[in-house]
Amino acid sequence: MKLASLDLGGRDGRLVVVSRDLRRAVAATGIAETLQAALDDWAVAEPRLLALSAALEAGTAPDAFAFDPAKALAPLPRAWQWLDGSAFHAHGELMAKVFGITNPHHDKPLMYQGMSHRFIAPTAPVPLPTEADGIDFEGEFAVVTGDVSMGTDADTARAHIRLVMLVNDWSLRVPGRAEMETGFGWVQAKPACSAAPIAVTPDELGESWADGRIHLNLLVDWNGARFGAANGGAMGFCFGQLIAHAARTRDLCAGTIIGSGTVSNENYRQVGSSCIAERRGIEMLDEGAARTGFMRFGDRVRMEVLHDGQSVFGAIDQEVVKG
Amino acid sequence: MKLASLDLGGRDGRLVVVSRDLRRAVAATGIAETLQAALDDWAVAEPRLLALSAALEAGTAPDAFAFDPAKALAPLPRAWQWLDGSAFHAHGELMAKVFGITNPHHDKPLMYQGMSHRFIAPTAPVPLPTEADGIDFEGEFAVVTGDVSMGTDADTARAHIRLVMLVNDWSLRVPGRAEMETGFGWVQAKPACSAAPIAVTPDELGESWADGRIHLNLLVDWNGARFGAANGGAMGFCFGQLIAHAARTRDLCAGTIIGSGTVSNENYRQVGSSCIAERRGIEMLDEGAARTGFMRFGDRVRMEVLHDGQSVFGAIDQEVVKG
Repeated sequence: MKLASLDLGGRDGRLVVVSRDLRRAVAATGIAETLQAALDDWAVAEPRLLALSAALEAGTAPDAFAFDPAKALAPLPRAWQWLDGSAFHAHGELMAKVFGITNPHHDKPLMYQGMSHRFIAPTAPVPLPTEADGIDFEGEFAVVTGDVSMGTDADTARAHIRLVMLVNDWSLRVPGRAEMETGFGWVQAKPACSAAPIAVTPDELGESWADGRIHLNLLVDWNGARFGAANGGAMGFCFGQLIAHAARTRDLCAGTIIGSGTVSNENYRQVGSSCIAERRGIEMLDEGAARTGFMRFGDRVRMEVLHDGQSVFGAIDQEVVKG
Repeated sequence: MKLASLDLGGRDGRLVVVSRDLRRAVAATGIAETLQAALDDWAVAEPRLLALSAALEAGTAPDAFAFDPAKALAPLPRAWQWLDGSAFHAHGELMAKVFGITNPHHDKPLMYQGMSHRFIAPTAPVPLPTEADGIDFEGEFAVVTGDVSMGTDADTARAHIRLVMLVNDWSLRVPGRAEMETGFGWVQAKPACSAAPIAVTPDELGESWADGRIHLNLLVDWNGARFGAANGGAMGFCFGQLIAHAARTRDLCAGTIIGSGTVSNENYRQVGSSCIAERRGIEMLDEGAARTGFMRFGDRVRMEVLHDGQSVFGAIDQEVVKG
């Protein structure tokens, strides 16, 4: 099942079910006005949404209409919680080598609490205050959970995954370094993330959803040139482990979004990177200095994931603009 | 005006206006079902809530009833954003001396993004997994903002303050130290905060609301013994500056809660502290070692603020229990 939120008024958009080929949609009227409302009452909403999805695929859903991704908001235009891991060891080890950013607790994932009151629509411009902040993208997979009780273990946690998403975790590297030094984590360095228009139930990924990981390439294009195509299967900690880490001392509420961190593979010199910081780190290792600059206003970044040639989540395709 | 959310079903409670003496309340039916809904449409809701508050004070509000704080949730049982500063220099300087926790950027407030999808009801038990985590309270003032645009300056930001709250920012000191070392900030160390039942408009504080600070004592009692009575007026950065810091690279949404950090005064040896970590720091300075332990299951902490002898926010009064 594929779900999206259309920009039809209100801060949370209107929930629609989208066809597998992303061409048609039907409003979830009478089931749930918003995706958050569906997640808050998933046991009731899910079977009804599944029935609507089946009708849409069969061509029997009344009032179906053409799906226009330009009218889509993020699946959760605002979410109650966004916890972002850093689960790809290739990325972590490179950052450790180059910037001295180390995880002193290797048995635990790195994770930060990010802002969640806004996820930017997939084709909306991204306003940021200044290029001097070192504007970077981070291509990530993410999952949306149901309610998860404090102390839930990793295996049980995996069963609480409701949806999978594609996220661009915008990062400002200059304030980021300063904020890391405080130990308090990131506020100014982590403005709103963007999200691809479609959230999918894990079964939509077929065999590519395995071991709590998404075994698909995250295609990143910067100003029309391929920048990265790293595979999500290389996560060192799976999503179940990330959820369990997050839930050690707190309940998670329905609609919590858990991010993988920048998707990164050991062969990053071949497959490329999902963020500029990683590319710069490779340059520092190989050439002694970073030569790739960060983003400029007017630059575009596009992220998409294909499965059997079909776009899974739709595309994030955005311009960075002066805010 | 005083507002609260009663536990009448639903995840967000039901908005009520509460009388100045906290004895009577009236539902905001027909104005806004929830406090978040009122904040989302404040320009429309505020004058109507003010009229209802005036009627309640005049004894002419129909359907007014006795206000029972035991039935109150946190004013925002879940909020879209919680950003907690560390704005009291006395506390910061002590932590720096004792634990080497320094702010390398003295011109900027320290701030972290905390979990906001749940604020615990003021008299509910607080379930935590283990005493070994070093369970501590942190008494804080907080403000609730309206929508704040990215780049808003501190003076303008102050005008976006809608409500003032009293918060206990529960802190787990053992995972807290480890998480600070990662630079990613706190996840496991910062479970859900608790909040006093009443949120008030700043005018309710009279002359005690000045310079973007709350010049009132935050009374903290641990197991019935006074632990601290530090004054909120000593904030090194005012709430306008904290909001502006938060909004440098992001819009803030209506219902954002910004915390002051642990309320602390230079004469903490006289007035006491708002968290155990500070008391322990003083002991380490004065006696060479901390002798006060952290909280045990079954312990209670009470927080309240008086203004002209009247409780402003109602009390937080909770037991810590094994979760």
